[in-house]
Amino acid sequence: MQDKHMLMIPGPTPVPEQVLLALAKHPIGHRSGDFSKIMAEVTENLKWLHQTSNDLLVLTASGTGAMEAGIINFLNAGDRVLVGSNGKFGDRWGKICKAYNMDVDLVTAEWGQPLDTEVFRAKLEADTEKQIKAVIITHSETSTGVLNDLETIAKYVKAHGEALTIVDAVTSLGAVNLPIDEWGLDVVGSGSQKGYMLPPGLSFLSVSARAWQAYENCTTPRFYFDLGPYRKSAKKDTTPFTPPVNLIFGLQVALQMMKQEGLESIFARHLRISAATRAGVKALGLPLLAPDDAYSTAVTAVAPTEFAAEDIRKIMNKRFDISLAGGQDHLKGKIFRIGHLGFVSDRDILTALSSLEATLSELGYQNGSSATAVDAATKVLATV
Amino acid sequence: MQDKHMLMIPGPTPVPEQVLLALAKHPIGHRSGDFSKIMAEVTENLKWLHQTSNDLLVLTASGTGAMEAGIINFLNAGDRVLVGSNGKFGDRWGKICKAYNMDVDLVTAEWGQPLDTEVFRAKLEADTEKQIKAVIITHSETSTGVLNDLETIAKYVKAHGEALTIVDAVTSLGAVNLPIDEWGLDVVGSGSQKGYMLPPGLSFLSVSARAWQAYENCTTPRFYFDLGPYRKSAKKDTTPFTPPVNLIFGLQVALQMMKQEGLESIFARHLRISAATRAGVKALGLPLLAPDDAYSTAVTAVAPTEFAAEDIRKIMNKRFDISLAGGQDHLKGKIFRIGHLGFVSDRDILTALSSLEATLSELGYQNGSSATAVDAATKVLATV
Repeated sequence: MQDKHMLMIPGPTPVPEQVLLALAKHPIGHRSGDFSKIMAEVTENLKWLHQTSNDLLVLTASGTGAMEAGIINFLNAGDRVLVGSNGKFGDRWGKICKAYNMDVDLVTAEWGQPLDTEVFRAKLEADTEKQIKAVIITHSETSTGVLNDLETIAKYVKAHGEALTIVDAVTSLGAVNLPIDEWGLDVVGSGSQKGYMLPPGLSFLSVSARAWQAYENCTTPRFYFDLGPYRKSAKKDTTPFTPPVNLIFGLQVALQMMKQEGLESIFARHLRISAATRAGVKALGLPLLAPDDAYSTAVTAVAPTEFAAEDIRKIMNKRFDISLAGGQDHLKGKIFRIGHLGFVSDRDILTALSSLEATLSELGYQNGSSATAVDAATKVLATV
Repeated sequence: MQDKHMLMIPGPTPVPEQVLLALAKHPIGHRSGDFSKIMAEVTENLKWLHQTSNDLLVLTASGTGAMEAGIINFLNAGDRVLVGSNGKFGDRWGKICKAYNMDVDLVTAEWGQPLDTEVFRAKLEADTEKQIKAVIITHSETSTGVLNDLETIAKYVKAHGEALTIVDAVTSLGAVNLPIDEWGLDVVGSGSQKGYMLPPGLSFLSVSARAWQAYENCTTPRFYFDLGPYRKSAKKDTTPFTPPVNLIFGLQVALQMMKQEGLESIFARHLRISAATRAGVKALGLPLLAPDDAYSTAVTAVAPTEFAAEDIRKIMNKRFDISLAGGQDHLKGKIFRIGHLGFVSDRDILTALSSLEATLSELGYQNGSSATAVDAATKVLATV
C-alpha cells in the first residue's frame, strides 16, 4: 500500500515527524554564526548521549567512514591490532586494518555467538612487550544481533596499559548503555541512521586524550578523514569541510527529543522492546540466533528452520508493508532480522509480531499451544 | 527577519520547495528494490547532467572527499602530478597529493587570475619520459570566481598520452558547460550543495576507462574511498555503504527538474545571471576580481577599494537578509563573493543588486552618474 511502509530493519530506522520537517528547512550557510550555534548545541548534546567528555567529532560519511577514520588516525602500518570478529562488521574492521598493512590478529567467534573475552585477556596479558597497539570491538554486531561484552574486554585493554580500545558502536549508541568515560573507551564510532532517529549521512566519533597522543605519532596518509582538523574546527563550533546542513538540523531536533526522554528511559525502552520481541518469536517456535545472555537490544536475528527466512520477509513486506532485514554473507537466506532501535515504540513491536504471526499462518504454520507471539510479548511489556 | 533569509553564497545554495519536501519523506531501506529503482534513475540522470557515458559514482562525503577519492584511486606515492593552483581549492588538491607523498609540481597563478595554459603545455611537452601521471585542475575556482581554461589544458594532457586529467568541478558542474566525454576528462568530482540544487552531503565522481586502467596499478591504501566497490555496486543500482537515503530522494527530484529545464537553458541562465551581476557591480564602481575573459558563471568575487568588504556583507545580512560569502585565506576581508548557481533566477540577481546598491548608500556611496546596478543588470538580462 502506497506510503504505508514500516521500517523494521537495523538502519535506516524510522524518523520522527518533527525531525523530518527539520530536514526540509531551507539550508543556511555553514560558516554563519547561526550554524555555529547549532553545532555547539548538537556537540554538547552528543557528548551527553555518548556519556563522555572526550572530543566528539561529526563526519559526513557512513558509519564505515567513521570507523576507518577511527583506525587510520591512531595506528600505523605494521602495528599489531586485535580485531574481534563475529559478524560482518567485525570482519570489515579487520579488512580496513589489512588495507592499511597493519598486523591483524583476528579473534573470531561463530556468527551468532559473542566474542570470548578470555581470549582477549590471554592475548593482552601475554603481550609483555606491548606490541598490541589497539583492540577493535564491535559492540552490537548488526549482522547477528549479538552484543559483545565490551565492558569486560575494555578492562583487559586497560590492564594492558598500551593498547587503545576502538569501538564500533554503530547500532549500540543510543540503544544500549555505553558509558564511554566510565569504561575508558578511546575511540567510539557510530552512525546517524541507527539509534539517533535520523536518516543516514552523518557519523560520529568520540576520541580520548590517550588516542590523541597516539595521533601525534601516526603517519598513515589521510586527508578528508584526518581528525586533527575536525578537532580544531569543533573547538570553534564548525567543521573542516562543508557539513550536511539539513541533516544537522534534523540531528538538533532528534537530540532534543532524546534529552527529553532521558538516557535511562531510552535504554529501558530498548531493553523492554527487545525482550518482548524475543518472547514473541520464541512463542512462535522460531529459533533466535543470539543467545539469551548476549543479545543486542537494537536488533533481533531469527533463524527459522521450518520456513524459509526469505518467504517470511517477502510476505511481511507484500502483505503487511513491513521491511525486515535479511541475512548477510553466509547467513543470507538463513535468517531474518527485526530492527527495533531508535524511534520504535512498544506498539511497533506488537504490530510486527502480530504481522509475523499472520505471515506464518499464511505459510501453513499450526500453532499447537494457545500461546501467541502477541500474548507472550504483551506479558513482557507489562513486566520488564 | 525570521525565516526570510536568502542564500547568495557559492554553496550551500537555495533548494527548491519540491526538493525540500522530498528530503522530508520517511526513509526506506537502502537495500530494497524501491531504492535500487531510484538509484538507477538518478545515476542515469547524473550521466546526462555530466554529459558522459563514464561510470558515475555517488559518495556520502563533501566535495573534498570526492576529490581525495579521485586522486588516491589512480595515483601512487612518488607519482609526479601537475596541480593547477590559483585559489583555495587548487591549493587543497596539492595538499592532498602531498599528504599521500606524491611528487607535486604546483602550477600557480595569482588568486583572481586564470592558470596559464602555456605552462601546462610546456611542462607536458617537455615530459618525454612520461613521468607526469596526472594533471589536476580546478575548473571554477570557488574562492575567486575564476574559470580556468580546462578545455585547452585537457587537450595538452591528451597530447601527452600518459597523464590523466583530474578535475575539480565542484562549483562548475550544473552551472558551466562541462562536456566530460567531448573534452576527454578522466576523473571529475563535484558536490550536491552547488549546481545540483541540493543541500550538502553528497558528492559525485565520473571515472573514465583510462582512469580504471590506472586504478589497477594503484596501491595507495584506502577503504571507504576505494572506488572499485562503488563501481561494482553501481552496476547493480546500489552502493557499497549506506547512502544518505533522504538526500537521494532530493537528488531524484532535483535532477528531474534539471532535465525539464534542459542543459542548454541551465547554462544560458547561469551565463545571463553572471553577466548581469558583473554589469551591475561595475555600474556601482566596484572592482571585479576575475577578468572579463575568465570568470565563472557560478560565483562573482568583488574586491571593493573604497568600502570594507566585511561592512558590505554585514549590512547585506542584517538589513536585507542576504548572505554573501567573504574571502578566504589571504583574501579574507578583502573581497566578498556573490554566489549565483543552482536554483537562482534573474529576479534573485535584481534583488541582490538592488540590496547591494542600498547597502552602499548606507555606507555613504554617492552615485555620480545616473546609471544604477539594477539598470545595468536589467539591460544585460534583456539581451544576453
